[in-house]
Amino acid sequence: MVQKNSPVLVEVTRGAEVESRHRGEVAVVDEGGRVRHHLGDPAAPVCMRSLAKPFQALPLLTTGAAAAFGFGPKELALMSGSLSGQDFQVALVEQILARMGLSPGALQCGSHPPLHRPTAKALAQAGEKPTPLHHTCAGKHASMLALCVHHGWPLDDYLNPAHPVQQLILKTVADMVDLNPADIPVALDGCSAPVFYVPLGNIARGFARLAAAPPDSPEGAIMAACLHHPRHIAGDGRLETLIMQALPERVFAKTGAEGGFALALAREGLGVALKIEDGASRALGPAILEVLQQLGLLSPEAQETLAPQWRPVLYNHRKQKVGQLRPVFELAL
Amino acid sequence: MVQKNSPVLVEVTRGAEVESRHRGEVAVVDEGGRVRHHLGDPAAPVCMRSLAKPFQALPLLTTGAAAAFGFGPKELALMSGSLSGQDFQVALVEQILARMGLSPGALQCGSHPPLHRPTAKALAQAGEKPTPLHHTCAGKHASMLALCVHHGWPLDDYLNPAHPVQQLILKTVADMVDLNPADIPVALDGCSAPVFYVPLGNIARGFARLAAAPPDSPEGAIMAACLHHPRHIAGDGRLETLIMQALPERVFAKTGAEGGFALALAREGLGVALKIEDGASRALGPAILEVLQQLGLLSPEAQETLAPQWRPVLYNHRKQKVGQLRPVFELAL
Repeated sequence: MVQKNSPVLVEVTRGAEVESRHRGEVAVVDEGGRVRHHLGDPAAPVCMRSLAKPFQALPLLTTGAAAAFGFGPKELALMSGSLSGQDFQVALVEQILARMGLSPGALQCGSHPPLHRPTAKALAQAGEKPTPLHHTCAGKHASMLALCVHHGWPLDDYLNPAHPVQQLILKTVADMVDLNPADIPVALDGCSAPVFYVPLGNIARGFARLAAAPPDSPEGAIMAACLHHPRHIAGDGRLETLIMQALPERVFAKTGAEGGFALALAREGLGVALKIEDGASRALGPAILEVLQQLGLLSPEAQETLAPQWRPVLYNHRKQKVGQLRPVFELAL
Repeated sequence: MVQKNSPVLVEVTRGAEVESRHRGEVAVVDEGGRVRHHLGDPAAPVCMRSLAKPFQALPLLTTGAAAAFGFGPKELALMSGSLSGQDFQVALVEQILARMGLSPGALQCGSHPPLHRPTAKALAQAGEKPTPLHHTCAGKHASMLALCVHHGWPLDDYLNPAHPVQQLILKTVADMVDLNPADIPVALDGCSAPVFYVPLGNIARGFARLAAAPPDSPEGAIMAACLHHPRHIAGDGRLETLIMQALPERVFAKTGAEGGFALALAREGLGVALKIEDGASRALGPAILEVLQQLGLLSPEAQETLAPQWRPVLYNHRKQKVGQLRPVFELAL
């Protein structure tokens, strides 16, 4: 079997030597689909996971559902985000559901402890169990329900890939990444929603379309909502939120499970997509920040603020420094 | 930069497609150092982490410390193991320390919640904090202290790489892997003890020496102790323990952090060493069980018992099957 040779993006050192390595692919693409920079194969299929969320939120605007329910930028950001289950997020998801007359029980995402550790700890100490409102995909599921209520579609099987809301979402994602829906393999996400396999360069192109969209278009509205609400599309301390806070108004950053990451670069009108081959989230910070640095977007202040994510230091159980993660690639420019 | 192309060992599927991939190297070596089978580069340096533990326990036998303190096979297995912090392990580590007149406070490994989840949960529910006795390296640290007490060496800096006990261990490890101590780069482990970078094939050779040793030799005594006490070298439900329980008297299995795994094959007198390039522990089961299968060691019963580790099924938050891990390599025979 001949295997493709994905380049090493990030090394994990222990002492003076390299202990482990993370490979992957990067594509920087414009809205016309031209690959501006890359590393590895831009045609490599990648499961979008939560990278699809901002595209999946577009029908809220194109169908008038957002206007009908009065969803503004904060709600749109939350629905495009992978949430940490923080109190303000849980409250807003509940409010969104209430506006369509639904209770949290309508969410079919399942539940897991909040990604925000202090919130998870507080919940456990209070003897309370996490609810679907704490799920990292709660906003996305609320938006799917909003589309169903708006169209009068059934709610009980809204996660079925054949359900009209999922067909509408597939069509929207396909348009954004310039593929036919029939050419997109579909699987199931951790939250039970359909997920989409798309070549890395096409994912980047979709994010370039967000970045380059006129402000009064649906794509422009999603871009602005996400760009201006970094705490609503992830959460305090999360990589996406930290990047967006360090580079305000410049970057919309989105993570997907299993080592996916994407950026929409507001000023440049470019999209970036990245996949860590082995799915390791620990490699995302070093890899995506190195991409931003090589594209010239990391200001000296951002370099300093984001140093712990760019070149994380590894400590042992006694807080001794034992190693480091470091990016080791150069984008083909 | 020209990069080596480590082969893909394990694929992670989601739906019908491959979402992520884990690469790595495998070496199957005899006690004379001949590579019998391999995949990737047997000369690739690997940080041994806990793969060094059974070698590091040898001086207990060569110096007479084990005899002086009355350590038998159970104690030797525990000292060669990466423990789960189960009650019987914690009690035995404490007993070992007591035999040399030491309290748990002498352990300098730090502490973390027990790897054994029910034990960690019980501890948390009782409002108790984990102690160094619960550390996965507690047995190893107790053995280092035993060597210090036996020789009259100072206890307060036993983790210093220049301390006589660490020099003795480095010399022992070097002998087992057929290298000069000066040729072994040393770094710090999670437990603050020195760790050793050694080519993968040399690690496998060290395990072959355990496997092929006469029963009355120090190497043979460590092999027998580990082989007969699968619960003492890891813990209930752990991969090493499950493999050893499914193939009794045939295999001593040892894990190391960051994707390292080794086997000593009792009947064949061979050693196996494996490194997952990216350090992912989820790839270890599929990779090492496929090696055992291709070497002809997995009985039909073992294939069935170990299927959940060999080809683990991935479920989402609602317990739907969403994907699978599967080995995809063939050893060069």
